[in-house]
Amino acid sequence: MDRLVLATRNAHKVTELRAILGEAGVTLELLGADAFPEVPDVKETGVTFAANALLKAHALARATGLPAVADDSGLCVDVLGGAPGIFSARWVGRHGDDTANLELLLAQLADVPDEHRGAHFACAAALALPDGRERVTEGRLTGTLRREPAGAGGFGYDPILQPTDSDRTCAELTAEEKNAISHRGLAFRALAPLVAELVPSGS
Amino acid sequence: MDRLVLATRNAHKVTELRAILGEAGVTLELLGADAFPEVPDVKETGVTFAANALLKAHALARATGLPAVADDSGLCVDVLGGAPGIFSARWVGRHGDDTANLELLLAQLADVPDEHRGAHFACAAALALPDGRERVTEGRLTGTLRREPAGAGGFGYDPILQPTDSDRTCAELTAEEKNAISHRGLAFRALAPLVAELVPSGS
Repeated sequence: MDRLVLATRNAHKVTELRAILGEAGVTLELLGADAFPEVPDVKETGVTFAANALLKAHALARATGLPAVADDSGLCVDVLGGAPGIFSARWVGRHGDDTANLELLLAQLADVPDEHRGAHFACAAALALPDGRERVTEGRLTGTLRREPAGAGGFGYDPILQPTDSDRTCAELTAEEKNAISHRGLAFRALAPLVAELVPSGS
Repeated sequence: MDRLVLATRNAHKVTELRAILGEAGVTLELLGADAFPEVPDVKETGVTFAANALLKAHALARATGLPAVADDSGLCVDVLGGAPGIFSARWVGRHGDDTANLELLLAQLADVPDEHRGAHFACAAALALPDGRERVTEGRLTGTLRREPAGAGGFGYDPILQPTDSDRTCAELTAEEKNAISHRGLAFRALAPLVAELVPSGS
């Protein structure tokens, strides 16, 4: 069976992407980037989600000789002109502290009234082949920002984004409910047929 | 002589505005908000510089019965979609720590390459009369963001913004050089004739 590499070392994300791509008909063997410990992480120097997703996918495809998919995603706050955006995972100035990032954002927006608390999650999903071909798709989940976190599911800013037409935050949804409407689910379901097309044994 | 109130308790800013408005021909007596210690600070709930400047000017005009001018200004970073913007003075989540705000921004932008480090200072200057009439003007100073602060002058983000066509940061300019090109200078020089028009003894 042909193989596809996922540009993430996050086991939770590997599971999520296996579920989304599998349901969309992709039958490739999906490897996490952990299977290639010698491949270094790429610096995210792009200034759009799509640019960073493509950077990561191309770097992994070149290094492994296999088709690779990657994503870049984040929270875009209307009143911040779309920030944190590509900086969502490093909002406090360093990577990897979800709680600190979320608390900083809530403090920055403390005086922003309810009618101006619109925001959306955005995700770009990219496929890159070792020969340089590429595809990129995008997905978005729109809602409003709570003043206090709620819910224990998900990760990142999930506890403060309440999707439009929901009375719960993303962290209060089940994994299935979240995948059905999430920015990442939408982007990867749009990418799945492109994977099938460019990696023919993939469906 | 008729009087005009400036909506700031910052002595440095009172001096700066006296100079700018005086040179532009406004002959009113300019009082700092310190002359009215009983007037509370207004909460900046607007989501634009103009909205916040008008909020502050109207609150002060109503409370003192005098014409009032106010400004709201900040640093708008291209790659952040214009943030910190109205949140510039509270970027770490609380007001009043210029150094912490600047250091957080530099850390957030650490991976952003030189060609994407464009930014501008923006200022909205507002005049409000006790009868409710209002005027608002805007000014902007465009440049690029350094990776390290330089210069001891100015305040806020001055040490990291290098104006277009300059090889120095705003904190390395003299007060005169800065007032000549600054967002605040431009906005208040545009406001001065409107002050003269609405407050006739003002010029």
